[in-house]
Amino acid sequence: MPGPTTPHEVFIVQENTGQAVPDSLATEEPLEIRLASGGEVRPVAVTMRTPGHDEELALGFLFGEGIIERRQDVVAMHRPLDRVGRPEENILVVEMIGGLEPDLKTLDRHFFTSSACGVCGKAGIEALLLKKEPVPHRGPRVRPEVLYSLPDSLHSEQSVFKSTGGLHAAGLYSADGEQIAVREDVGRHNALDKLIGSSLDAGRLPLDEAVVMVSGRSSYEILQKCLMADVTFVCAVSAPSSLAVSLARQFNITLIGFLRDRRFNIYSGRERVLLDA
Amino acid sequence: MPGPTTPHEVFIVQENTGQAVPDSLATEEPLEIRLASGGEVRPVAVTMRTPGHDEELALGFLFGEGIIERRQDVVAMHRPLDRVGRPEENILVVEMIGGLEPDLKTLDRHFFTSSACGVCGKAGIEALLLKKEPVPHRGPRVRPEVLYSLPDSLHSEQSVFKSTGGLHAAGLYSADGEQIAVREDVGRHNALDKLIGSSLDAGRLPLDEAVVMVSGRSSYEILQKCLMADVTFVCAVSAPSSLAVSLARQFNITLIGFLRDRRFNIYSGRERVLLDA
Repeated sequence: MPGPTTPHEVFIVQENTGQAVPDSLATEEPLEIRLASGGEVRPVAVTMRTPGHDEELALGFLFGEGIIERRQDVVAMHRPLDRVGRPEENILVVEMIGGLEPDLKTLDRHFFTSSACGVCGKAGIEALLLKKEPVPHRGPRVRPEVLYSLPDSLHSEQSVFKSTGGLHAAGLYSADGEQIAVREDVGRHNALDKLIGSSLDAGRLPLDEAVVMVSGRSSYEILQKCLMADVTFVCAVSAPSSLAVSLARQFNITLIGFLRDRRFNIYSGRERVLLDA
Repeated sequence: MPGPTTPHEVFIVQENTGQAVPDSLATEEPLEIRLASGGEVRPVAVTMRTPGHDEELALGFLFGEGIIERRQDVVAMHRPLDRVGRPEENILVVEMIGGLEPDLKTLDRHFFTSSACGVCGKAGIEALLLKKEPVPHRGPRVRPEVLYSLPDSLHSEQSVFKSTGGLHAAGLYSADGEQIAVREDVGRHNALDKLIGSSLDAGRLPLDEAVVMVSGRSSYEILQKCLMADVTFVCAVSAPSSLAVSLARQFNITLIGFLRDRRFNIYSGRERVLLDA
């Protein structure tokens, strides 16, 4: 079972130099929740979660959706076994009390709590490899000074954030820091979808020479959306998840995190950052 | 069409007194994306979004999911008309180029990008009213000093956050600030699901005398999950969305935002905060 944190070496940059240090990432892995009732087992949700307290997550999800009304509606929870007899770490089967036929109609519109990548993160990345090839070792070369300027540049364009303090943003930049477009949304993924949609509409794809900057954290889904648009350079104000880093490394995408206050961490693709030798 | 911001009066508290001032909220409304191809129209996604750039959002979403591969795959986008002939603001029909039969199998696991509340926020709240009654004017009475202590208390229990800087948290507190449980996750909603699941497991429901604190923003879904567990007092470190405030007001839930640095805003249910007269 993966723990809540994943060890990972990170390259910390300040000024124009950096150093590699051991670090921890928040683990991100999918969890598929299956309902067993009346002799039938059905998947009802896949969510990208941090492993740990999975049974509570399943109980809370089912309660919030109105599928169970009390603790006693669930008689047991277990991991199914894989082909070689090991428990599936990313699947939880919830056995309902006899006679309770859950009303899954209410789930019609939110059958899956999050877009998912198969029942394990690795399988999801392998599925992506069938669709996309790792990006070549080209792409923009970017100076640290340009990266330091991105958070302020993104923030200055966030008109709705300024008046509400409550929005995510995604920005598109050239390798020398010229701002091409910024989009905002209450949803992290929506801001990026809008940015990529506007790029598609403007005939700017592929984005393999551009830099994308997001206001929050970087997750598997953020990296997946960037990959589909051939983005090779992704920056975030906050931390990446373990699966975001795995995807970035697998596809040779440069991934920058904690980009603020004139410093940043490089998690993948260091060769695209122009540091002093 | 609702704009990206929604005007709203907020009650700003510092020390033990406060004042009402005009403010803006980031608008949150669902968008249903429908695909029209081969004479058939099918909904493929509902996402909670900030209105504006909806066409770009649809293009970016469909591109990221691999449903379209180029801009020309979409020949037109339009809003369907409602019964009285007005455009549906929260629905967008995407007309595919003739002969393109989109492969929706890839959407199997992420058919809807987010759990949704019907095709307009108001309809979603009305549907909730069929399930739950507005909470009565009881619930905890909480002193500002207790609220000021919650961010540090939540943070001190965030063990994974401390080592990774990358996790959301949700905490359960008594009305006098005693910490009952804290859960962390890469997903905002998962942290809250775990917290409510642990409460269900421990026989603590209903949570009508408790205070829930979340580390990020408060959205419709956060409030919906709290409502289902009869939580009457919800606090967040950051901003609420327009629909979170609507739900809180409709159900008489106290909603606090921007709770940090010994100040906070009250968006709903002010009578549960013990201010100086």
